Amino acid sequence: MWMAELAARAQTPVPTVKYYLREQLLPAGERIGATRSSYSEEHVRRLRLIRALVDVAGMGLDAVRDVLAAVDAEAEHGNRVEALGTAHGALSPRHPTTPSATSRQRVADLVSERGWHVDPDGPHGRALSAALDAMDAAEHPLEEAALAVYADAMTEVAAAEVDATLQRAGADAVTYAVTGTVLAEPVLLALRRMAQQDEALRRG
Amino acid sequence: MWMAELAARAQTPVPTVKYYLREQLLPAGERIGATRSSYSEEHVRRLRLIRALVDVAGMGLDAVRDVLAAVDAEAEHGNRVEALGTAHGALSPRHPTTPSATSRQRVADLVSERGWHVDPDGPHGRALSAALDAMDAAEHPLEEAALAVYADAMTEVAAAEVDATLQRAGADAVTYAVTGTVLAEPVLLALRRMAQQDEALRRG
Repeated sequence: MWMAELAARAQTPVPTVKYYLREQLLPAGERIGATRSSYSEEHVRRLRLIRALVDVAGMGLDAVRDVLAAVDAEAEHGNRVEALGTAHGALSPRHPTTPSATSRQRVADLVSERGWHVDPDGPHGRALSAALDAMDAAEHPLEEAALAVYADAMTEVAAAEVDATLQRAGADAVTYAVTGTVLAEPVLLALRRMAQQDEALRRG
Repeated sequence: MWMAELAARAQTPVPTVKYYLREQLLPAGERIGATRSSYSEEHVRRLRLIRALVDVAGMGLDAVRDVLAAVDAEAEHGNRVEALGTAHGALSPRHPTTPSATSRQRVADLVSERGWHVDPDGPHGRALSAALDAMDAAEHPLEEAALAVYADAMTEVAAAEVDATLQRAGADAVTYAVTGTVLAEPVLLALRRMAQQDEALRRG
């Protein structure tokens, strides 16, 4: 297909597609003649993934680049878990506010109590520490019991998600995991608010 | 206290405090002499709430105004559930993309199956419909089983949160519910990513 069709299929303006090509986020098409290139279904899939990461996840181009590198590594080497790890890592901010020693210790304790195979000082662990600090700063510290309820709920969610992801083959698994993680966030948060509203009315 | 102390206590620049006063988000202080006013602990609490809503929730001033109105209504009339509803409603975008008929029906079905006392076409229901549409558009539709897992998990979370909220007295309950809803979002999302990472490694 020509660029106009590629752009239309991924609901992306043509100048944006050209920008992604220049930035090498999108691989070049097949050269046909001096000024035209032809694009494949693979281009449509990748362009849609980029748009999801930029628009839905609000990721910067550097983080998008990390996710795409993970997707490519998976396709080449088939190391799915490592690729998933890289892709996921890119979803959390790289340099969040330096978390306090207290909240880092709290996250380390949580990880060790649950036996999670996760670096408490990695991007997600630091994001969690920073979020706990923000609650402290707003004088709304998260109680230990609430943190446990949250961790239990997210373990249920993650188990179901990883099950669904591992049913996919090859490179699709990484794309699926990343888009699912990002795109389902607003779903989870909207459901939480609906459930809160219902619970408040029930007890009110 | 003087404005400089108020600003420092809420980690807010003085010009921003003045802006909130002009916009009547923050009530005027007690006039002391021609050019000075004195502020109370109540001002500190409200300024911190405004900052949390703007910085953490990324809310616009109109939405902040709605939340503050709910907090004030609660303080005056003591109708806690209604105030909670107004405050929560302000947290979801007022005019999200018009959701598709399919996803609105799906949300209506979910609400009726679970017996939730929630308007499926209210702000959270529409936010959920729009999020489901976004997943469809990215060719990553949310399966019915996954939606059920999410709704179950969020019901557990909401039940614990509403319990904690209703233990608070009066106007504090609304402030607590709103700040908790907003501030705990990054906590939940970071925990989900940590749990995903752990689950992927366990099965990988």
